[in-house]
Amino acid sequence: MAAEKSRILIIGGTGYIGKFIVKASARAGHPTFALIRESTAADPAKAKILEEFKASGVTLIHGDLYEHEGLVKIIKEVDVVISTVGQGQLADQTKIIAAIKEAGNIKLRVSSTGSSTISVGDPDRSTGILASIAWKQPVKNGRTRFFPSEFGNDVDRTNALEPAKTAFGIKVQIRRAIEAENIPYTYVSSNFFAGYFLPSLAQATTRSLPTDKVVILGDGNAKAIFNDEDDIGAYTIKAVDDPRTLNKVLYLRPPANIYSHNELVSLWEKKTGKKFERVYISEEDFVKQIKEAPFPVNVILSIHHTVFLKGDHTNFEIEPSFGVEGSQLYPDIKYTTVEEYLNRFL
Amino acid sequence: MAAEKSRILIIGGTGYIGKFIVKASARAGHPTFALIRESTAADPAKAKILEEFKASGVTLIHGDLYEHEGLVKIIKEVDVVISTVGQGQLADQTKIIAAIKEAGNIKLRVSSTGSSTISVGDPDRSTGILASIAWKQPVKNGRTRFFPSEFGNDVDRTNALEPAKTAFGIKVQIRRAIEAENIPYTYVSSNFFAGYFLPSLAQATTRSLPTDKVVILGDGNAKAIFNDEDDIGAYTIKAVDDPRTLNKVLYLRPPANIYSHNELVSLWEKKTGKKFERVYISEEDFVKQIKEAPFPVNVILSIHHTVFLKGDHTNFEIEPSFGVEGSQLYPDIKYTTVEEYLNRFL
Repeated sequence: MAAEKSRILIIGGTGYIGKFIVKASARAGHPTFALIRESTAADPAKAKILEEFKASGVTLIHGDLYEHEGLVKIIKEVDVVISTVGQGQLADQTKIIAAIKEAGNIKLRVSSTGSSTISVGDPDRSTGILASIAWKQPVKNGRTRFFPSEFGNDVDRTNALEPAKTAFGIKVQIRRAIEAENIPYTYVSSNFFAGYFLPSLAQATTRSLPTDKVVILGDGNAKAIFNDEDDIGAYTIKAVDDPRTLNKVLYLRPPANIYSHNELVSLWEKKTGKKFERVYISEEDFVKQIKEAPFPVNVILSIHHTVFLKGDHTNFEIEPSFGVEGSQLYPDIKYTTVEEYLNRFL
Repeated sequence: MAAEKSRILIIGGTGYIGKFIVKASARAGHPTFALIRESTAADPAKAKILEEFKASGVTLIHGDLYEHEGLVKIIKEVDVVISTVGQGQLADQTKIIAAIKEAGNIKLRVSSTGSSTISVGDPDRSTGILASIAWKQPVKNGRTRFFPSEFGNDVDRTNALEPAKTAFGIKVQIRRAIEAENIPYTYVSSNFFAGYFLPSLAQATTRSLPTDKVVILGDGNAKAIFNDEDDIGAYTIKAVDDPRTLNKVLYLRPPANIYSHNELVSLWEKKTGKKFERVYISEEDFVKQIKEAPFPVNVILSIHHTVFLKGDHTNFEIEPSFGVEGSQLYPDIKYTTVEEYLNRFL
């Protein structure tokens, strides 16, 4: 039987990655709700995106994280909550967790006979029988869930230095809080945003394409992953009604988007017919740069460090026990490749 | 009578601006203590700076913000606490405030007869007589004080957009917490770090000098202020034993370091003999860029916005009721001018 599409609430929907997820949700036919702060609703710089949302059939809900009653009320009306809040609000996602808990509808359900459903309040994952069923048979009734704001490195598998370490640590704390409350989840590890990293050819200290020199960290051979933001939206929304992504990390590693920095530079050289002088920075020197940089540049540098010097996008295998890979699950998504993306800059 | 030099504890001393303040303190002959975390002490990337500290006679104290008892103990041994902690720890300066309060030695003291001192625990600023004496006669005995981590815009006088607004807001909260506890303070508003902003000629989206084009926000006429980090250290340490800076904002506005973006570009053109194409970005377009940028780039952009589009470094007069200006108070400091600084890049 075909289930109707989940109703999705996005919190942080006008932010950098949020707007792509809101649009993907509407495009896929999900009843889509976006929680909009008063200040955002009144912000002329946000007017266009809010118009686009409305034109796509998105329901705008005025409210915010800090209005508990209102948040509980809207969460009761949906099946899935996707948070895309920015760094400053990551820690405050505990408010969403509290509201989900009180709303009570986003939780593990087991279908023991196929018709009746049993709500499992706080299953004990280590000993409870109901719990073990719940975690093994999450099929249709287990589709309600929470996607916390992630959309980057897998923060549980990282060699980040400060200050990225602390920034990632907030996401880790939210993961643990979700798990402690037995709220069903999907964590989307989408690696690099193409729209942010490709316009500088992934260089750490500029936001422009190289003209003569290109700065490369380490030996330039660690593999990084660059995903188009629209595709991140599409994969995320595909995962919503998919039992295979329940209580898992959804990694986005589309094969054509995995490049070492050296390979990326070579690709750009091929496209432009130019040669760039490759300036290699040793890990030791770059770590020194990170330690000496002021906030928030040190955050940017330390993110580059995890990916290009530690290889944190690709230095581990995805095990079925904790993760699944998006391009394998959804081969029908025709993602934008890095090569296609770079054509925009020619 | 010449007072002996205050004993100074710096918390966050190996950070971006902290190391300049530690060095300035030692150079000025203050008994200087630096609180060093275990992880910092063990960090090879910090070994050199710790060696330099020791060679300058700085006493390294192992500990951190979160060890209350240890923090109280070291604060009892000093007269002045300077915090230079990074963004991630700004909010946790409440731990320093709690330790200062418990240590009890850093507080307003009044000298009614010139010999005896009266400790004023929690003077009521609006009605108390002792309090009014305390706030008017802070001379010698009032030299103990706390410098919270500031060293940027005056966060009480800003037109920042998010996310800078929230980042600045944490500093505002710490100011209010200090004032609520009647802890004597100096807030150092040192405006832009020359070492961060001048190597890109203050452009928002790159960290390199211009080669052909230079990006300018708005009309490029708002005046910004660029101070050498060593000078920021020197001014800060000068303020320590100066009653004129007690319970005031110390602004660093050395006349030769105040430049509009247009003037800065013209100066660089004069020095290099080149002409750069000036690409002006309207406020509307730049605000859109900020709203669309991911963290932490949006922080950088929004800081540029406050300074170059809102003029927040210079769009208000310093009133004696709340502030003093460093180059006027300490004309003997031969600061590095922007023009001299740029010569390093020729």
